[in-house]
Amino acid sequence: MTTRVSASELHAFCMEALRRVGAKESHAQIVADTLVMTDTWGTFTHGTKLLRDYARRVKAGGLRSDTDPSVVASGPAWALVDGGSCLGHVTSKFAMDQAVQRAKATGIAYVGVRNSCHFGAAGYYAWLAAKEGLIGIAMANDIPSVAAAGSRRSVTGSNPIAYAVPTGTGDPILLDMAVSTVAGGKVYAAFQRGEPIPDNWILDEEGHPSTDSSLYPNKAALTPAAYHKGYGIALLIESLSGLLTGAKITWQVASWIHSDPTQSTGHGAAFIAIDVAAIAPREQFNARINDLIREIHAAPAADGVERVLVPHEREWNLRRKALVEGIDLPSDVAGKLTDLANDVDLHPAWLTK
Amino acid sequence: MTTRVSASELHAFCMEALRRVGAKESHAQIVADTLVMTDTWGTFTHGTKLLRDYARRVKAGGLRSDTDPSVVASGPAWALVDGGSCLGHVTSKFAMDQAVQRAKATGIAYVGVRNSCHFGAAGYYAWLAAKEGLIGIAMANDIPSVAAAGSRRSVTGSNPIAYAVPTGTGDPILLDMAVSTVAGGKVYAAFQRGEPIPDNWILDEEGHPSTDSSLYPNKAALTPAAYHKGYGIALLIESLSGLLTGAKITWQVASWIHSDPTQSTGHGAAFIAIDVAAIAPREQFNARINDLIREIHAAPAADGVERVLVPHEREWNLRRKALVEGIDLPSDVAGKLTDLANDVDLHPAWLTK
Repeated sequence: MTTRVSASELHAFCMEALRRVGAKESHAQIVADTLVMTDTWGTFTHGTKLLRDYARRVKAGGLRSDTDPSVVASGPAWALVDGGSCLGHVTSKFAMDQAVQRAKATGIAYVGVRNSCHFGAAGYYAWLAAKEGLIGIAMANDIPSVAAAGSRRSVTGSNPIAYAVPTGTGDPILLDMAVSTVAGGKVYAAFQRGEPIPDNWILDEEGHPSTDSSLYPNKAALTPAAYHKGYGIALLIESLSGLLTGAKITWQVASWIHSDPTQSTGHGAAFIAIDVAAIAPREQFNARINDLIREIHAAPAADGVERVLVPHEREWNLRRKALVEGIDLPSDVAGKLTDLANDVDLHPAWLTK
Repeated sequence: MTTRVSASELHAFCMEALRRVGAKESHAQIVADTLVMTDTWGTFTHGTKLLRDYARRVKAGGLRSDTDPSVVASGPAWALVDGGSCLGHVTSKFAMDQAVQRAKATGIAYVGVRNSCHFGAAGYYAWLAAKEGLIGIAMANDIPSVAAAGSRRSVTGSNPIAYAVPTGTGDPILLDMAVSTVAGGKVYAAFQRGEPIPDNWILDEEGHPSTDSSLYPNKAALTPAAYHKGYGIALLIESLSGLLTGAKITWQVASWIHSDPTQSTGHGAAFIAIDVAAIAPREQFNARINDLIREIHAAPAADGVERVLVPHEREWNLRRKALVEGIDLPSDVAGKLTDLANDVDLHPAWLTK
């Protein structure tokens, strides 16, 4: 059971819902852009499904929309941004825009963020750089939900990291990953659908593998991807997003869903942009990356696989289809949007039919 | 059966072996520093075990020691280095030193490398930045040995990536990982020891898991770590190390072990340095990262685990022990050093006794 909606109708709904909880127009625009694009990729765990919880915090005041993020310190190739407790998407776009602008002058730039909140899909911000022709890297910390190698409880956040590399006229290569084996949202979605999960996704309170999706997040930790590798990457992200920025880290960060919605969550994030054209002849870079993509497409595929894809190729194809045919929202997403619609007394035909 | 040697004796042996194949003093010094430090960490797959193959290429001329790496293009926060077919360690140290110097002026810097070769352990170069108080990131491409998500043959190199974060007076947090589930060197070491391997390390020519270590590298591909995540990271590394630098990529790269030793291999690499002190108050950063380390140490450990460690903590402890008691070289390492000793007619007492 899915609910079909056009990207533009979904975008309008997000905008209006955000207006009704008090978000200003420029903020609503950025959040709607981010969430709807994420849904067109088919990445429903990080799209409009999350809007109700963001809206609740905006209404309660923990997420502010009467101010804007600002640069509080900077140097030639870096800046620190204070998000002012604005929506994480607003602060993150501001920060990546800063990184892109600075990288165009210096080749590479780092922008760290404090006083932010959950920012949705990291890949969106990496893409903001790629669409300007730069390589973008985006990452953020979060409240612990992932075990360390050797621990039986959560030690780091699922700390998303994404990169995007421009390819000229084609789709950017884009990877958006959590440092856990799977994102917590996938465990939660399985729970909502009443499905068990594979035995390598979570550890129970005794530190043993479990297939019971209901244990997460209170009585289980996500496993780190590839064990010590995912754990190690989590600490790099904590360093660049949290320690270097002055943001809160690990257990200091407040849950953006469950904590007091009148208060800030204190998330940190980090954005790096690298200007391809400053460093390499643009035509040569484009020719070479497209040769690489062709080489990957020609690689012998495993049993049951039609073609070897580059990262995010499937999502770009889904997006093209969604922009023509509409987005088919899974029932858990439509359910969350219905709850939000009731909260703000907004009842679009596509959602209520 | 291990062979005990002091770090200084092992270093002297490496220096003399390199001199005898024609390496100049400054190059021999860098290679010996790198390989011996790696052995003190207990990372024997990437230490002096590799010296014989490097030495063979130096003698044959494919690795040159009559020239030096140089900056061929640069901007405020970036540089491109041509390695001039020098030993990869020499070029990589030069490049990371460049990155550190530039980052001290701009906050962050990227240095890309072409015309390099295998550089040993990526973590060594990340550490070069950390010991100067900067966050260091090092990566390189290599001839394909790792499957893509969905492929049955090798598509990317095992493309190592490492980072190191300084902690003030304590050991840097350091992660050094291949994008494969395990480094190819570990499969090869298992083969040399006549041991089978776990069934998730390699895929055979049909794309099926295998425990037969003898298949690698000619008839097997390494699996990507965490499947699409390792594959995706491999392509980021290929982009920053190969595409952006003008280095050779994927199948253009020649095997540093098996290809014609009179020719260059064409490897690329990339180094990023971020100056902590430029961006954050140093004392605050140090206090916070040491709080984080204490928090990790206090985390409840899994069954059979004494204490949750930060990445590379075990290796720093092994190094302290090795510097006092000597390094216990495994038999496969001692065997390779004995072969090298015979090649260059150098017979130290610790190796021949």
